Amino acid sequence: MQGNLLYAQSGGVTAVINASACAVIETARKRGVRVLAARNGIIGALREDLIDTSKETAGAVAALRHTPGGAFGSCRFKLKSIEQDRARYERLIDVFRAHDIRWFLYNGGNDSADTSLKISQVGKALGYDITVVGVPKTVDNDLAVTDCCPGFGSVAKYTAVSVLEASLDVASMAESSTKVFVMEVMGRHAGWIAAAAGLAGNGADEAPHVILFPEIAFDEDRFLARVKATVDRVGWCTVVVSEGVRNKDGKFLSEVGTRDAFGHAQLGGVAPLLAQLVKDRLGYKYHWAMPDYLQRSARHIASKTDVAHAYAVGKSAVELALAGRNAVMPAIVRTSDSPYRWKIEAVPLSRVANHEKKLPKGFIGRDGYSITAAARRYLEPLIRGEDPPPTGTNGLPKYVRLKNVAVARRLADYAIGER
Amino acid sequence: MQGNLLYAQSGGVTAVINASACAVIETARKRGVRVLAARNGIIGALREDLIDTSKETAGAVAALRHTPGGAFGSCRFKLKSIEQDRARYERLIDVFRAHDIRWFLYNGGNDSADTSLKISQVGKALGYDITVVGVPKTVDNDLAVTDCCPGFGSVAKYTAVSVLEASLDVASMAESSTKVFVMEVMGRHAGWIAAAAGLAGNGADEAPHVILFPEIAFDEDRFLARVKATVDRVGWCTVVVSEGVRNKDGKFLSEVGTRDAFGHAQLGGVAPLLAQLVKDRLGYKYHWAMPDYLQRSARHIASKTDVAHAYAVGKSAVELALAGRNAVMPAIVRTSDSPYRWKIEAVPLSRVANHEKKLPKGFIGRDGYSITAAARRYLEPLIRGEDPPPTGTNGLPKYVRLKNVAVARRLADYAIGER
Repeated sequence: MQGNLLYAQSGGVTAVINASACAVIETARKRGVRVLAARNGIIGALREDLIDTSKETAGAVAALRHTPGGAFGSCRFKLKSIEQDRARYERLIDVFRAHDIRWFLYNGGNDSADTSLKISQVGKALGYDITVVGVPKTVDNDLAVTDCCPGFGSVAKYTAVSVLEASLDVASMAESSTKVFVMEVMGRHAGWIAAAAGLAGNGADEAPHVILFPEIAFDEDRFLARVKATVDRVGWCTVVVSEGVRNKDGKFLSEVGTRDAFGHAQLGGVAPLLAQLVKDRLGYKYHWAMPDYLQRSARHIASKTDVAHAYAVGKSAVELALAGRNAVMPAIVRTSDSPYRWKIEAVPLSRVANHEKKLPKGFIGRDGYSITAAARRYLEPLIRGEDPPPTGTNGLPKYVRLKNVAVARRLADYAIGER
Repeated sequence: MQGNLLYAQSGGVTAVINASACAVIETARKRGVRVLAARNGIIGALREDLIDTSKETAGAVAALRHTPGGAFGSCRFKLKSIEQDRARYERLIDVFRAHDIRWFLYNGGNDSADTSLKISQVGKALGYDITVVGVPKTVDNDLAVTDCCPGFGSVAKYTAVSVLEASLDVASMAESSTKVFVMEVMGRHAGWIAAAAGLAGNGADEAPHVILFPEIAFDEDRFLARVKATVDRVGWCTVVVSEGVRNKDGKFLSEVGTRDAFGHAQLGGVAPLLAQLVKDRLGYKYHWAMPDYLQRSARHIASKTDVAHAYAVGKSAVELALAGRNAVMPAIVRTSDSPYRWKIEAVPLSRVANHEKKLPKGFIGRDGYSITAAARRYLEPLIRGEDPPPTGTNGLPKYVRLKNVAVARRLADYAIGER
């Protein structure tokens, strides 16, 4: 085989994106192909800031499988259309040419699929033979075509386990102290993670008692009535709220508050706002939590299914690339719910880019605050199984830090310019 | 043996308080002693709302060892002095007498040690033979005499692991997105949990780069300079802040804000406030997290050492009680740092009650933002080892819910009155 393979990570990282990186490098090594990695995603590719992964030991590469975060750095940097951003696309091809990069694997979400698709087109237009394959990744689970996205299963498991555990705490304290617990989860546009919280319990009396989805406009009075009814019946109430919850006018609650008393500028977070609302209107003592990055980096409680997915798409991406399958992405295809069975299939990037997979209406209960049996059938296999990282004698997981040795530059300096 | 043993849980619950409950019941069963539990702590004892633990299977009792929260309910309810609260103390003795309770084990923190001591004195004064033993528990680690408190090691481990994981995330994003991550931890009066976060890394370049202790008055300019220097040098910065951080006037930052821009009423949380300060003054993009109850209920990542401590103090408490050792508490005594060795010793409750174990000055680095080698020697053994709960096919830990069968009342109704 001739040429090098370039791998880059993009967008918000996950607990398992490095498992895909591990698969990419291990699979390419078996095929005798050298893997370069772009430092900080596409930014590194533009800057010709490349990492030579052949300098890493097999042990270090294997440890990527259980290490959260993005080992080569990721970025939030979106290339515009080929017309608007032609110079940057051409620069990428220059970098590919200078380093004999024949295969480019871009590990990210919607934007990355779009970028990958465009790069594959530009290569053709500029007469440079490059095979581009997307590698799916996003905790948001909103990529089209693939049944689920690597990264989601682990944040789903973290969320369900955390709701279960914290709710046992609240139940213990409710008689004389905290009666309402509000936990905020990620998901600005779709309620996938909020739905996963629903796995923590089953039935109206089990936590979470109220899930607030971005798909359902927030109704203050109905919400408060539901909280009160739950406290009256159960003695306490756990609320899970998606960061993306909006009011009837379509504005994020976290930005507008729910009423005058919250009219001042919020420091962020819809959980404290709802907790205060409950206190003001119902008088209950509250606690609230905002796990933020903890939820998407919690490799210690990753889903074994999710890790397997992440590894499989990385492995498949290399195989597809080396087979010359341009502008595709390995997707996870579910062939059975019970027993859970899945396989990997290549799908055209054009079917993935610029589409968004919404939470199906049939996944939200009729009350608007719970998940359905269909949601459970879909979600449960994704949080199944444990794959704990090895732990050191210091009580901490043994996460790897790569050497990330830079490849010597061959081109002139390049200013990325405005982002 | 004659008579019953009453066990009650008090104050904020932990990931391992039920491991102590497990030990109490298992040890008493071996000795042929029936264990009653007060529902919701001392409140249940006052109300004669007692649970018959002999109705629980051996399997259910064993599962308490790996179940977070307080299985019998806890409470925030402090008895005042014997003079001020005589009627309540007398009521407790009435309940003990009615149910032939000869041993009372109270599982809690400082206040509970004080209550236990007083009950032991009242029993004597009223001519009722009751042996009272305290069982230590608190995530705050502020109990006197005992080397550490069951519950602390697990929140310490959760905190160190979470800081490590989230920091790998931040490091990945820093080039084009989040540069500063702020995580708030519990500890209103002492920086034990904040100090434990320091175990996530070692040296000025490893996260956490800034720890804000309640013991050190917050200095806005120094803090910002430290954050800026870290971002300049490392590329990003992780800040761990104790909820109990105060300004130079001794006021909680979370209540007063740090300057005019934050003069409005806060919805709680010092993390969002500091994050906004960093944004306003240094311009960095931030994320912040507030794990709240998640940190103290995270049984899935409990420290094996902590679970062993919790079980040992429960077991010892029963043995001490049955041996007639009134007004004592089993304390954890460290006999060696490396290898870590410990044993249990009975100490008088009078030495524990109304004392508070502060974070030693020698545990905080000279810069005021880090921990010392002495702190590491103390803290590290406490987070060592894993003791994961069994997990179901649904991907969730198998936490037990007891039947909690009530004991038939024998006394007239009792109104607890004002709290």
